[in-house]
Amino acid sequence: MIIGQSGGATAVINASLVGAVEAALADQRIGGIYGMHHGIEGLLKEDIIDLGNQPNSVWSQLLHTPSAALGSCRYKLQEHDLERTIEILRRYDIHYMLYIGGNDSADTAHQLAGAAQQSGYELFIISIPKTIDNDLPFTDHCPGYGSAARFLAQATQDSTMNTLSIPWHYPVKVIETMGRDAGWLTASAALGKRDESDAPHILLLPEKPFHEQSFLTQVEEIYKKLGFVIIVAAEAIRDENGNALGSAGQAGLDAFQHPLLSGAAQYLVELVKRELKLRARFDKPGDLQRMSSTHISIPDRNEAYLVGKMGVHALLAGESDKMITLVRETQSPYHCTTGLADLGQVANVQRLMPAEYLNETKTMVTPAFYEYALPLIGEPLEHHTQLEMTRIRS
Amino acid sequence: MIIGQSGGATAVINASLVGAVEAALADQRIGGIYGMHHGIEGLLKEDIIDLGNQPNSVWSQLLHTPSAALGSCRYKLQEHDLERTIEILRRYDIHYMLYIGGNDSADTAHQLAGAAQQSGYELFIISIPKTIDNDLPFTDHCPGYGSAARFLAQATQDSTMNTLSIPWHYPVKVIETMGRDAGWLTASAALGKRDESDAPHILLLPEKPFHEQSFLTQVEEIYKKLGFVIIVAAEAIRDENGNALGSAGQAGLDAFQHPLLSGAAQYLVELVKRELKLRARFDKPGDLQRMSSTHISIPDRNEAYLVGKMGVHALLAGESDKMITLVRETQSPYHCTTGLADLGQVANVQRLMPAEYLNETKTMVTPAFYEYALPLIGEPLEHHTQLEMTRIRS
Repeated sequence: MIIGQSGGATAVINASLVGAVEAALADQRIGGIYGMHHGIEGLLKEDIIDLGNQPNSVWSQLLHTPSAALGSCRYKLQEHDLERTIEILRRYDIHYMLYIGGNDSADTAHQLAGAAQQSGYELFIISIPKTIDNDLPFTDHCPGYGSAARFLAQATQDSTMNTLSIPWHYPVKVIETMGRDAGWLTASAALGKRDESDAPHILLLPEKPFHEQSFLTQVEEIYKKLGFVIIVAAEAIRDENGNALGSAGQAGLDAFQHPLLSGAAQYLVELVKRELKLRARFDKPGDLQRMSSTHISIPDRNEAYLVGKMGVHALLAGESDKMITLVRETQSPYHCTTGLADLGQVANVQRLMPAEYLNETKTMVTPAFYEYALPLIGEPLEHHTQLEMTRIRS
Repeated sequence: MIIGQSGGATAVINASLVGAVEAALADQRIGGIYGMHHGIEGLLKEDIIDLGNQPNSVWSQLLHTPSAALGSCRYKLQEHDLERTIEILRRYDIHYMLYIGGNDSADTAHQLAGAAQQSGYELFIISIPKTIDNDLPFTDHCPGYGSAARFLAQATQDSTMNTLSIPWHYPVKVIETMGRDAGWLTASAALGKRDESDAPHILLLPEKPFHEQSFLTQVEEIYKKLGFVIIVAAEAIRDENGNALGSAGQAGLDAFQHPLLSGAAQYLVELVKRELKLRARFDKPGDLQRMSSTHISIPDRNEAYLVGKMGVHALLAGESDKMITLVRETQSPYHCTTGLADLGQVANVQRLMPAEYLNETKTMVTPAFYEYALPLIGEPLEHHTQLEMTRIRS
């Protein structure tokens, strides 16, 4: 059996690796456990690691180690790669493959399954879902999302505490999240919000084209009411012409006449300062939202382990060209089992936020979203106390 | 007694408040415990809160709540404010004051002590140190620094894990920290580094003017050796002419001809892309480094509590116009007691990083810095495991 990790890493993708390796070690039908060093790109270079002889302590420690221990890749298979991959698998006598990744990785796995069948090589291949973007279809959610969501929810609450200490110092704050096309990550920043005045106040999701005037009006209204405004914006929001905010043309040129890509948060901060004359600044957690070892969601890690393990079970049951899915069996207590989806239907399909999870203006989430997402981030967030503001008079 | 919080908030500044209130509640000589809502700025508006009648649960919960529960301010006292403050204190029969803050707050406290003496009003006033910048003199370190340092050290290790998953995807990463004049915060990002190849590889501190060519040469050398480079930069680094990186003139104008302040990290990323043709991006944790409730250092919180409590003891012992300091008694086991410093000597003095904590090029810290700073961040950081890369051959 060979296992690979592919695409953007997450805080729990190694748990899937551990789940798979432990299941494989427990079954005598699997004679050797190999790892692709940097996914399919490494496999093509025959950069293959022995996973059967690691020190025992590695596996328990990897459960707490973010990122992809095997090394990941972002490699798009070329036509001739397929034949070469099958040739390599044949040479190493590999007939089982697990590929842990998102949409692109599912596509890679699906192509390999087709190529093996075409060349008459017996290969069972299962894809293990993983993406902080939470945009794979057919699965209730994606391992990796819960931990990133926990980070963003807690970070939004924590960072807002600083604004509250002197609201008039920097009354407007933008927190920039990842998320190219789907707003799941951005939306998760609201999971610590308990009432209307709580942060965040505005979500800017990739699903909705950015409209400058509506945005400014909304910021101004909230500022007048609360004295501060917390905005969480996806890095990839686009205007109505499809241009990313802060891309060339909008952010201008640098001193050397190169286009300056300021990014969405920087752009929004400048916009608010210029048009509303309000002091504004931004946080951009960047890779931290993928990797924070102190925000790992326990159910997320457990499920990442589960889908890895169930991938091995599916292979041994003769399944192939499928992705393991998470199936929500009960909501209270929250519990998921796993299922299977055809890779041909999964590959290159993106699941965006459904309408029922967004309010009318698509700038805030609905109670249905909380019901969906809260169980995924694990134990309750740290909620912060306030003093009772009883005034003294002389 | 009245207590105020002032300046930038920290993750543990409320622990100082709790320490002070609990010590005050325990002493019958103090008849009432008041809080300034938003520091001296609130006091001037007679916005005063009753701290003697809070629900009991508030104090234990505030120990875990980042930011300034009383509200903070960044207000520079005007000449006529002094007289007015004394008048208000007289009206409320307040003779003890604790002011929790950094340099500016120490200056405020010192001015008030002088004004009280001049007008013959009996006022005991003690300043409680607090700043993530760690730049107050006479104290071993400042409460608030340990938790921010823990955040930056862990965040740098965690975020680097993402770079390691595919080093060639974005081989250069800049992490931007706070820190206007002193490099303590930026330096703390190195506290998880165990050997030369570990991140971070370059620190850009405010203490050292930025020199573009040396920087680019260093980035290129490290990239050639390791295949990736992690840079931690203070937001306020300046070039040899004293201009902040990314300030107007360097970052250019936006589409509306307004100067674009891109910030140091954004500037460095563009510089590396342009001059070295390497893909680069940045994380800017922003307010999170002050506020992260999941990175609170236990010794930091305990010491914040201690300096609050000792502030009350000092007041009751008849001390005034002084700041509580932390005194490192033993290094192993690490233990601090408290002392006192004259506010007249503290106010407006900034303690920068001493030469012994920096290497020759001032781009990395020395073993002496680890010895100084590691005890402040509390229990060991999460260190991340790697697989043994034993290759398989066909």
